[in-house]
Amino acid sequence: MNKYMKLAKEVAQNGMNNNEGGPFGAVITDKEGNIISTGNNKVLKNNDPTAHAEITAIREACSKLKTYDLSNYILYTSCEPCPMCLSAIIWSNIKEIYYACTRQDAAEIGFRDDLIYEYLNGKANNLIKLNHIDRENCIEVFEKYKNENKIIY
Amino acid sequence: MNKYMKLAKEVAQNGMNNNEGGPFGAVITDKEGNIISTGNNKVLKNNDPTAHAEITAIREACSKLKTYDLSNYILYTSCEPCPMCLSAIIWSNIKEIYYACTRQDAAEIGFRDDLIYEYLNGKANNLIKLNHIDRENCIEVFEKYKNENKIIY
Repeated sequence: MNKYMKLAKEVAQNGMNNNEGGPFGAVITDKEGNIISTGNNKVLKNNDPTAHAEITAIREACSKLKTYDLSNYILYTSCEPCPMCLSAIIWSNIKEIYYACTRQDAAEIGFRDDLIYEYLNGKANNLIKLNHIDRENCIEVFEKYKNENKIIY
Repeated sequence: MNKYMKLAKEVAQNGMNNNEGGPFGAVITDKEGNIISTGNNKVLKNNDPTAHAEITAIREACSKLKTYDLSNYILYTSCEPCPMCLSAIIWSNIKEIYYACTRQDAAEIGFRDDLIYEYLNGKANNLIKLNHIDRENCIEVFEKYKNENKIIY
């Protein structure tokens, strides 16, 4: 078993045993194999629906390294990232990911990962209601941003 | 203009002017129209690639209300949520969302929202590399979770 995945599994188990959240764990390393951060699901502990294992590990790594850019780092996660976490990984610029359990395994124990993937693919339409209003009023903020050449990340 | 969207726009502008992050703002209200939280993009300020406006507002609301469940709340956002934020909204159980600018507008000023949507739809394959390993070792944590009837959220 990969040693970083073994650690991700242990982190998942500890979080579960402490009732911090779902049974998910993640580890971020640099290219040399040094461990930068670990994270487990802390949704229940922190009252934070965004505190999934991968996001917890990303926040911790960024805080330690004082950057929002993890281009040169690797993520190990005990389960295939849900769409929130997968998108967070993309925003963080991590490009190399190792996962163990699948979205179907997560569905098997009651989590909605698979359903959210279906929703994003247009196959589950009733999850939420998105209403489009006031674009003509808000677009000027974007124009100002572009004109001022603000940082894109 | 909707008054909550007006506030979301102001929050976006302030965050941009203070160089906290991209020009995005969000507001969460209850069904009676009371404002629970606001959030703007703080990726640069906080060195947190997950600190988008909607996620910032969700975390703030959950922290205030001491819950991970925002079923009865409404979210206003100055731009269509990216896949990370849309999934975070689903995980938080918010079901009613109002947005102004679109994912295409965000792409116009350099953000990758649209690209990440395409990636999740299988249309942009080279963003990241997902490697599947060690499922046989990690699946037992899920089985334990299921057997112990832990909370599903």
